[in-house]
Amino acid sequence: MRSVSLLGIPNMPMIKPGDDLAALICRCATEAGLGIDEDDVVVIAQKIVSKAEGRLVRLSETVPSARAREIAEITQKDPRFVEAVLSDTGRVLRTGPGLLIVEHRLGFVCANAGVDRSNVAGDAGETIALLPLDPDGSASRIRDGIRAITGQTVAVIINDSHGRAFREGAVGVAIGVAGLHPLTDERGQSDLFGYQMQVTTIGTADELASAASLVMGQTDEATPVVIIRGASYRRGPGDIQELLRERAKDLFR
Amino acid sequence: MRSVSLLGIPNMPMIKPGDDLAALICRCATEAGLGIDEDDVVVIAQKIVSKAEGRLVRLSETVPSARAREIAEITQKDPRFVEAVLSDTGRVLRTGPGLLIVEHRLGFVCANAGVDRSNVAGDAGETIALLPLDPDGSASRIRDGIRAITGQTVAVIINDSHGRAFREGAVGVAIGVAGLHPLTDERGQSDLFGYQMQVTTIGTADELASAASLVMGQTDEATPVVIIRGASYRRGPGDIQELLRERAKDLFR
Repeated sequence: MRSVSLLGIPNMPMIKPGDDLAALICRCATEAGLGIDEDDVVVIAQKIVSKAEGRLVRLSETVPSARAREIAEITQKDPRFVEAVLSDTGRVLRTGPGLLIVEHRLGFVCANAGVDRSNVAGDAGETIALLPLDPDGSASRIRDGIRAITGQTVAVIINDSHGRAFREGAVGVAIGVAGLHPLTDERGQSDLFGYQMQVTTIGTADELASAASLVMGQTDEATPVVIIRGASYRRGPGDIQELLRERAKDLFR
Repeated sequence: MRSVSLLGIPNMPMIKPGDDLAALICRCATEAGLGIDEDDVVVIAQKIVSKAEGRLVRLSETVPSARAREIAEITQKDPRFVEAVLSDTGRVLRTGPGLLIVEHRLGFVCANAGVDRSNVAGDAGETIALLPLDPDGSASRIRDGIRAITGQTVAVIINDSHGRAFREGAVGVAIGVAGLHPLTDERGQSDLFGYQMQVTTIGTADELASAASLVMGQTDEATPVVIIRGASYRRGPGDIQELLRERAKDLFR
């Protein structure tokens, strides 16, 4: 029987800059009786990675550029917030009232370069969190830490919620991976009847990221780390760029 | 502890036109000892719904129009296949070698209007399957059938794998829903620190559809029905249109 468990790790403490996420994840998973098993996928909310790495910006210490003020005018956003977004932006794609969609310096197409004001600190949005500098590197370090503590080899995904073209509602997507191929290529496999399947490449890391989001929640019951146990994936070096379509190949950018 | 189980229903038979999916799902779930619980989300692969409803087309009986032949030339696809795609298409959005992206008559933006040649019948792609005529209606009838047999009120999602703008790899998305609101609106809720959350609407039905895809697989181990047990969702009438952005509001179409 094929089954997969999505196990929220309970009682994770509030994360502060400098915290050792691997150690906290292992401790809380053990205390809850979940443990860490070989080939588990450990999905971690971007926000706690950003916090642990100190990727925090205080709006009061941010001086908006002329361009930030101009975009703030169009988007009706705080110019200091826009300045922080631009600091992590490769190019601005769309602007409008309440709307700032960019290509993040790492290639993600998302609102506000993934910068978020909620759940960062107890100051009503005054402190904001940027995405980790190198999410694959963050995932890799946490994976190494988990292996050092438990002896288990896992995959690690850092996830975030991104909006999408064509469809309403944000969904969990991977922004950093370690220990798995984010894509599963099913081209050339045979289907149930032996017919050669046509082009089908599955965004496995994004499906795992969305599944974990179901357990994480966004608000006061937040569960920032979810263990996915029993899922099929291909072990391999993680490279989030495999999931991002090159601009030149994108028909809708 | 927050946890969610993704339970593939084993031993589902090959589906033929006229099959009663609700009855087969309940029987196989019971025989496997899974049963059906109140508030389960039953996710069903589009292909078996299409088959049960007889949404099958034999290419040998399809006569391509001039427009189908023209698009077949550009896309290097079988003109009879293109004809079938056009029969379910609202408008063609992008064409290129190997590429035919359309707005399905129901509003989905996807390749080939969701028409698929694999796993349909044992004739090497000669028989193809169109999407169900009314996926919400299909989901609703299956939901009613499950309630009639088991007494349990569940949500039903019909899922398919769609490609996306910006990111590589197809992921599971909902194409029909019954018994749940496909979107979860978290605007106005407070975050962990009491800060009012900014605009956040989650595409819950798509996250559920992606999670189920992890268990379904695409090839010869296919598991076309997955029970999701323990997930939070809002009961309500299902309307897939809530998940589809109106063309006028879409910045990337």
